[in-house]
This record gives sequence, structure tokens and C-alpha cells, in this order.
Amino acid sequence: MSKQTIDADAVRRYLLSLQEGLTQAFEALDGEQRFLRDSWERAEGGGGEARVLADGAVFERAGVNFSRVYGAQLPPAATKARPELVGRGFEATGVSVVVHPRNPHVPTAHMNVRFLIAEAPDQEPVWWFGGGFDLTPYYPVEADVRHWHRTARDACQPFGDEVYPRFKAACDRYFYLPHRKEARGVGGLFFDDWRQPDFAGAFALMRSVGDHFIRAYQPIVEARRGEPYTEAQREFQLMRRGRYVEFNLVHDRGTLFGLQSDGRTESILMSMPPQVSWRYNWSPAAGTPEAELTERYLVAQDWV
Amino acid sequence: MSKQTIDADAVRRYLLSLQEGLTQAFEALDGEQRFLRDSWERAEGGGGEARVLADGAVFERAGVNFSRVYGAQLPPAATKARPELVGRGFEATGVSVVVHPRNPHVPTAHMNVRFLIAEAPDQEPVWWFGGGFDLTPYYPVEADVRHWHRTARDACQPFGDEVYPRFKAACDRYFYLPHRKEARGVGGLFFDDWRQPDFAGAFALMRSVGDHFIRAYQPIVEARRGEPYTEAQREFQLMRRGRYVEFNLVHDRGTLFGLQSDGRTESILMSMPPQVSWRYNWSPAAGTPEAELTERYLVAQDWV
Repeated sequence: MSKQTIDADAVRRYLLSLQEGLTQAFEALDGEQRFLRDSWERAEGGGGEARVLADGAVFERAGVNFSRVYGAQLPPAATKARPELVGRGFEATGVSVVVHPRNPHVPTAHMNVRFLIAEAPDQEPVWWFGGGFDLTPYYPVEADVRHWHRTARDACQPFGDEVYPRFKAACDRYFYLPHRKEARGVGGLFFDDWRQPDFAGAFALMRSVGDHFIRAYQPIVEARRGEPYTEAQREFQLMRRGRYVEFNLVHDRGTLFGLQSDGRTESILMSMPPQVSWRYNWSPAAGTPEAELTERYLVAQDWV
Repeated sequence: MSKQTIDADAVRRYLLSLQEGLTQAFEALDGEQRFLRDSWERAEGGGGEARVLADGAVFERAGVNFSRVYGAQLPPAATKARPELVGRGFEATGVSVVVHPRNPHVPTAHMNVRFLIAEAPDQEPVWWFGGGFDLTPYYPVEADVRHWHRTARDACQPFGDEVYPRFKAACDRYFYLPHRKEARGVGGLFFDDWRQPDFAGAFALMRSVGDHFIRAYQPIVEARRGEPYTEAQREFQLMRRGRYVEFNLVHDRGTLFGLQSDGRTESILMSMPPQVSWRYNWSPAAGTPEAELTERYLVAQDWV
């Protein structure tokens, strides 16, 4: 694969337009609050723009971040599975989205798409795409989960029948809390180290994942944002958000990559929910919707 | 050092009596709620007793846990600094305490004392003590911080003049959040791999640290638990608790040891505060008590 097939600037332009489109879509869905825009620079190289909507009518917090950072050495979180890249310089460009709705009937959603280049003197650069999206409901509705996964499948379909099952299985493996023996949510797509069949094809796949995220999420938000909820349902949401924090701080490679590469802490930890609670050894009574979440939904299965 | 100088049963008995004494002391300080007692067993070997006080008059949550676990292989968190012990079987006995008061004027406190034995066939067992205590105030009072550190020094004094400065400096290094460039709290004591001068002397030091913890903390709780506080002060406490979560889940070796050794998740994560909040890029106005916390107190210094 020759060097000139890589068009990093086209990737950057796509990611900026994705950020802008998602900003507008979430502002329209919220109907009340706007995103604050916060540009930042990184001492070692690069920077980004954080966009954060707080205390909205629908979204307690939504973050839509763009970043492009480079450095002299790939951080350990990126080279753990690729020891041959240790010591290489890198450039990482991506958009990360985490949305924490206030209403426990509206699921939390996460999306990330990214492009990495690892460079070393006198060697061909190594590049790859990664990303995906996943859904974390509190009071899931089966039709919503099926819609989410069908849209995920649609995003992958143009690239071959095997892509959706592969990315779906990778998502189930990745968003799993071993210390809870429990999935983080109902899954979606996850891919990394993606270079197939070539730069243009892999870039097209990343765009398709980026573009399908809002199609997967928007109808669910619209269907659930008006549902009434109780204090007990809100408290359940806050406890489940504790699992989200545990996953992101203990396991998430993106979070570790950011913290290890001396990234901008406030942008990285924008994924944290605005309010969270932990209660000792609580578990829901059998037969309740809260028990159904873990027993029926937080178990990997075919939703298409 | 011969094998018979180790009296693991005496350590276990001391730790159980420490747990009992702290249980009684915290119930008396709270004046309202009692500890729930929750025995558990671990599939690979060992078990423990979690004691948790929730929704008390003074303590929003207090945990006083005893555990004694053993296994065929020391987890990575324990061998990172001691590669020569990789693959050894282990026995770990300890008491861990985390106290989250409701009133933001009462600091959060943490204490841990532990005894480890790493064994391999046909070799002398390797043993060591570890532990310490540290304080995390939200609205610190200088006299309280000085009392805390003087008591920490008193705990170390019988073992030599150099012990307190050494453990104090180790505590400042350990309870530090690099991604925030900030100390977790005002410090205290931290020690690990402690075998000096022999088993009896090292055990005596661990007992002294264990016994001095409540003498350091109790007068502060008594002095501050009745102070009135505002909603804004409570909100500041919830945000600062977010830093506590970040430290424990990203950095704390004890938490990682527990999660990696397939420990009891609910006992390990008893350290999580009951309620927490994250706000994007918030920082206190100059000259406020909230700014004074980070500028004056969360900076390593001599408090004695």
C-alpha cells in the first residue's frame, strides 16, 4: 500500500462535519439548551474542540468532541495489542460522543470514530480506523433495541455480510465489565485496526458508522423523552450510571489512551455522567423491570 | 529470617479486633445507624466480612471490611514492582476502611492495613506489611490537618525518627492524580513492602498505624459534624468526590488488586461515595474557600 493513498485531510474534514451535524441534531432534539464550544491545545502537539451541552430539557449532559493530537510516542493503551508499534510517533484524529439523558427511559448513547497514523523514520506509516457506537438503556424497550441494531447492520451492510456480525461480537466483548460479570449495555458496533480493503474502503466504512449513529439514536430519543418517570426510576438510573463510570475508568482503552497521552482531562472525562450514585450490594427484586434489564437485556444476543 | 518468626494467626486476630473496635467507634460517632454485617466467601480461597453503615446521621456511608484471601498466583497489581514474585501463591489479610460523611465540613477518611505472604514450593515465604491512612477534606481547617498529621507522626515515632517523614512522603506520592495534577487530599501515611527490622517489629508498626487511625479522625468528626452547610457546599463535596472515584478506579493498587484477583466487587467498591457528580470544566472563583482547598491544602507540605 503506497503512502499517497492516505488522505488524512479528508478524514479531518469529514470528522469536523460529523461533529457539526451531531451538534445541530442534538440541539434540535433537546429543544432548549445549546452546546458550549471550548477549543483547546495540547502542549505536546495538536488540540481539539469540546462541545458540551449541560442541563438541557432532554440531555443532562451531551458531549460531542473533536480532537487531533500527535506525539512522539504512541501511549501504552494503543500499543498493548501491537508491540511492533512501540516507540512510533502518532497522529490520532477522532470524534467522540457521549450523551446522558435526564429521563431514565431514554438510553445513554456513545459513539466514537477515529483515524490513527503511526510513523517511524524511513518506514511506511501504519494507519488504521476504529470506532463504533453502543447503547446503554435503563428501561429498555425491545423495539428500540432492535431498531438500534438494525441501523448498525445497515451501516455495515455495504461492506459485506460478515462485517456487522463481526463488529457486533467485538462490541459485546469490549463493553463488558468482568468484575460485574455483566454487559455495559445492549451493544452495537465496535471495530479497531481496520484497514480493509484499502484506505478509501476503510474510510468509507468509518463514515458509514459515523453517519448511522444519529439515525440509530434519534428515533429512540423522540419516542421516549416524554415518558413520565418516578423518583425510584431516577435513582435506578443513577446507580446504573455507576457501572458506566466503572467501565470507563477501569477498562475503556480510549479513556486510558487519553489520560496516558496527557490529553485534555476535561474532554476525556466528559464521558462521566453528571450525577451518579453507588449503593452497597443492591439488587432488584425478581420480576421487576430493573431485574429484567440485567437478566434479559444485558446479555449478548442477536437483536436483528 | 526463619519461617517460624511469622505468626500469621496473631495478625489475623489483631485485624479482627481492629475491625470490631472501629465498628463500635463509628457507630458511637454516628449515634443513629448500625453497621450491616455481610460475610462472604471467595471461590478461589478465603473470604471476609464487609461491614457497611449507610444513611447515618453523620456518615452517608462507612465501610469497615476485613478480608483474608489466598490464591495460586499473586495478581499483577502486586507483582508490578516485584517481578521476582510472579507466579507465587499468596495469602493477603487486611482491614480496609472508607468513610464518607454527609456534611461537607467533615473530611472523608481512608485507612488500610494488610499483611501479605507470597509462597513458592521449596522456598522461604516472602512476607510484608503495608497500609496507611489519609484524609480528604472538602472545607479543611488547618488545626484539623495538623492534628491528623501529628497523630500520624505519633504512630510512627516509636519506630524511629525517619519513619514518619518517609511514610508521609510516600503517601503524598501515592495519593496523587496525575491527570488532574492534584493531590487527592492532605495525605497522611503510606507504606508497603515493610519487613523492618523483623516480623515482630514490622507487625508492631502496622498495629500502631491501625490503632492511631481513629485517634486521628475522631476529634475531627466530633468538631465538624454539627456545622451547618449550604446546598452549594454540598454540591462542591459531590464534585470533589468525583476525584475520589477517579483516583480509586484509575490508580489505586488496592482496588486493582481486588478486581484482578476476582475479589468481592461489592466489598472492593464500598470505597465509592454514595453520591457523586461531575460538571464539565468547573473551577472555583479565586479567593473562595473552594479555591483555597486546591491552592493551599492539596499541595504536599509539612503539617507537623
